[in-house]
Amino acid sequence: MNFQNMTSEARAALLSELQGQYQDFCAKGLKLDMSRGKPGADQLALSMELLDAALIAQDVKAQNGFDVRNYGVMDGIPECKALFAELLDVPAENLIVFGNSSLNVMYDYVAHCMTHGAGGTPWSRLPRVKFACPVPGYDRHFAILEYFGIEMVNVPMTAEGPDMDVLEQLVRDEDVRGMICVPKYSNPEGTTFSAQTVRRIAALKPAAKDFRIIWDNAYCVHDLGDTTDELLNVFEACAAQGSEDMIIEVASTSKISFPGSGVAVMAASAKNIADFKKQMFVQTIGHDKINQLRHARYFKDAAGIHAHMQRLRAILEPKFRAVLDALESELGGTGAAQWKTPNGGYFVSLDVLPGCAKRVCALCAEAGVVLTGAGATFPYGKDPQDSNIRIAPTFPPANELHIAMELLCLCVKLAALEKLS
Amino acid sequence: MNFQNMTSEARAALLSELQGQYQDFCAKGLKLDMSRGKPGADQLALSMELLDAALIAQDVKAQNGFDVRNYGVMDGIPECKALFAELLDVPAENLIVFGNSSLNVMYDYVAHCMTHGAGGTPWSRLPRVKFACPVPGYDRHFAILEYFGIEMVNVPMTAEGPDMDVLEQLVRDEDVRGMICVPKYSNPEGTTFSAQTVRRIAALKPAAKDFRIIWDNAYCVHDLGDTTDELLNVFEACAAQGSEDMIIEVASTSKISFPGSGVAVMAASAKNIADFKKQMFVQTIGHDKINQLRHARYFKDAAGIHAHMQRLRAILEPKFRAVLDALESELGGTGAAQWKTPNGGYFVSLDVLPGCAKRVCALCAEAGVVLTGAGATFPYGKDPQDSNIRIAPTFPPANELHIAMELLCLCVKLAALEKLS
Repeated sequence: MNFQNMTSEARAALLSELQGQYQDFCAKGLKLDMSRGKPGADQLALSMELLDAALIAQDVKAQNGFDVRNYGVMDGIPECKALFAELLDVPAENLIVFGNSSLNVMYDYVAHCMTHGAGGTPWSRLPRVKFACPVPGYDRHFAILEYFGIEMVNVPMTAEGPDMDVLEQLVRDEDVRGMICVPKYSNPEGTTFSAQTVRRIAALKPAAKDFRIIWDNAYCVHDLGDTTDELLNVFEACAAQGSEDMIIEVASTSKISFPGSGVAVMAASAKNIADFKKQMFVQTIGHDKINQLRHARYFKDAAGIHAHMQRLRAILEPKFRAVLDALESELGGTGAAQWKTPNGGYFVSLDVLPGCAKRVCALCAEAGVVLTGAGATFPYGKDPQDSNIRIAPTFPPANELHIAMELLCLCVKLAALEKLS
Repeated sequence: MNFQNMTSEARAALLSELQGQYQDFCAKGLKLDMSRGKPGADQLALSMELLDAALIAQDVKAQNGFDVRNYGVMDGIPECKALFAELLDVPAENLIVFGNSSLNVMYDYVAHCMTHGAGGTPWSRLPRVKFACPVPGYDRHFAILEYFGIEMVNVPMTAEGPDMDVLEQLVRDEDVRGMICVPKYSNPEGTTFSAQTVRRIAALKPAAKDFRIIWDNAYCVHDLGDTTDELLNVFEACAAQGSEDMIIEVASTSKISFPGSGVAVMAASAKNIADFKKQMFVQTIGHDKINQLRHARYFKDAAGIHAHMQRLRAILEPKFRAVLDALESELGGTGAAQWKTPNGGYFVSLDVLPGCAKRVCALCAEAGVVLTGAGATFPYGKDPQDSNIRIAPTFPPANELHIAMELLCLCVKLAALEKLS
C-alpha cells in the first residue's frame, strides 16, 4: 500500500515494526560493498585464457611487422584497431588504441584542452569554461571537470537522453565548451540516447567553436537481456551536419576483459586524432602493445567480443534480476521509490523520496552495507533532490546481494516513513 | 695521423680515397636504423617467461589481498612496490607504481605542475618558467618541456655531471623552476653524477620554493662491464639538507623487461607523493596490476633483476665493444672525433669536429644508415657546436652494427676532411 495513503497511526506502527527489523540487521555485523561497478570474480575468471603466453609467443609481430615487445607504434597495433573499428563501427584510421584506462584517456583529453586547447585558445586561458552534464551521471566524469575548475551545469536526463531543449539553449553560451556523457546504458540509469537525441546532438550549433562532447561509450556491448538498446552511430549523424569534430568517443575492455588490464580506445575525427597525437608524441613512446595483441588475438573480432559478453551476461543477468525483484516485491506500490529496468550497463538507478537518499545510504552504512554515496551521481556531489541512489549489483556474490538488497529496501521504507511522519 | 697535422695535399688525397669508399657504401643499398635506444630481439627473448600465465593464475591476489584482475589499488601492489623500493633504495611508502612508461609519468608530472603547481602557483600562471637542462641530454625530456612552453637553459655536463658552478648560479633566478636529468649512465654520454655532484645538488638553495628536479634514473641497473658506476642515493643526500621535496625520481623496467610492456615507478617525498596522488585519483582507477604482479613474481627481488641484467649485459657488452673498437681503430689519432667509454647505459656519445655533426648524419642517411638526428641531444634540437652524435648500439644485430659503424667512421672522417679543406 502506498505510504502516503496510510493513516499516520498505520505508518507509525509500520515504522516501529521496520525499526525492529533494522535492529536485527545491525546485529548481523554485515560488511558488504555495493559501492562501485566492479565485475565479480566469476566474471573475471571467464577471461583467464587471455593471459595465455602462447597468444604472444606464437608470433611476436603485429600485422604491421612490428615486434610488439619493443618500442614503437604509438597509436596502437593494426589488429587491435581493426577490432575496435568493427566494434564501434568507425574507420580504423579514426582510432587510437591506448593503455588500460578510458578514464585516463578522458582525463588526458580534458588536460590537453586546458593546456593546449581543442583547436582554439587553451581553455586554461579563458575566463570561464563550463560543461553540460546530463544528470544523474558518472562521478568520475564530474571529478575530472572539477579538478580542472570547469564549471558543471546540470542537464536533466529524460527517457531519451539529455533534455535536448535545455541543452540546445545551454550551448548558446560561449562559455559552455563541452558535454560529458554515457550515451548507451548510461551510468547510472541505463538509458540509451534515442536516435532523435543523437541527431539533435549532432545538429547542435554551439557558440563555442571548439565545443567538445566526450562520448563515453563504456557500455557499448553490455546488454543484460534479450531486449537490447541500439545507439545511433554518432559520427554518421554528425557527418550529415559536418559536426564530427565535436565528438571524442572513448571505450575500453575494462568490463569486457579485465578492469585495469584491458585496452582503451578513442575514436574521433581526423582533425581531432591528428591534434591529440601531437600531445601523445610528447607523452609516450607507446602503450602496452603486448596487451593489445593479447586482446586482438583472443577476441579475434567483434563477434568474438559479443560471444564473450553473452557468457558474462549469463552471470550478470541473475544479479540484476535479483535487484529488480527485490525492489518490486519490497517497494512496489509503496510510493517510496522509483526505478527503471535497464536493458544493459552496470547499474540500477533508484530514486527514493526527495530528501531521503543520504538518510538511506547512512542507514545502510550503519548496518554494514556500503552503497555509492548519495549525491555521487551529480556534479559536486550535490543531488538537488537528495533522491538518487546508484545500485551496483555486479560485484557481490548472489547471497550477499540478496541480503544487501533486503537491507536497502528496508532502509528506503524507513527513510520514507520517517519523512512522512 | 691527426688530420690537422697533414699537408693539404695529403688531406685532399685521403678525402678523394674516402669518397670512393663512400660511393661503394652508397651502392650497397643499406637500410639500417641506429636512431633509437631500442633493445634487440635477442634481449627481448630473455624476458619471455615473464608472459607465463601461471605467474598470475597461481594466485590472482596480491599480498594485500586484492584481486589484481579487478579495479583498485591505485598506487601499485605491495610486492611491486617492495621490488622497486629495494632496487632504488627508497622506502616503499615513497613509491608509486604506474603503467608502462616513465616518460608518461614525467609528462604527467610536468603537466601537473603546469595546471596545479608543485605546491605553489600553477606554473601556467607564472609569467615565465625555465628549466636547467644538462647537455647533451635526452631529446624526449626536452620535448616535454618545449611542449609546455618551458624555457630550457643549457648546463654543460662535465665528467662528474652537470657543471655545478653554472647550476648553482642559475637557480638564483626564481623563474628557474626545475631541472631534468639522467643521473646514472646519462643519455647520451653514460656519465654518472659523482657523489660530490649529488651532494651539491641536494644542497641547492633555489630561489623558486617549488623547484623540482626530475631525476630520471632510467639506467639504474644497466651496467655494461665489470667496472660499474655508483650513484649516491639522492634522497639520503637531500635528507641531510631537508631538501627531499626537490626530487622526483622515476625509473622503469622498459629496458629490463619489455619496452612498452614494463612497469614504471616514481619515488618522491611523502609530500610530493601525497600531492601527486590527488591528481592520480582523478586520472585513473589504477594501472595494470596484472603486469605489476607478473614483474614482481618473475623477478622476485632486486637480486633477481640484477641477475637478469647480467644476462642482458652478455648481449650488450659485445655491441658496445664493437662500437668502441671501431671508433678507436678508425678514428683514433685522427683528431676527427672524441668519445668516452661508458660503464653502462644505452649509448655512446660521439663528438665530431664542431660544425660537422649534421653533415655526418646526412652522409650516413644518404648511404642508408639512420642515426639519431644531429642536435637531438640539445634543447630545441640546437647543438651550439653542431658536434654531438648519439650512437645507439643496442638494436642492430652484430653484423649490421659493424657495417653501420664502418660507415659512420667513414662519414666522420669525410666531414672532418671537408671542413679542414
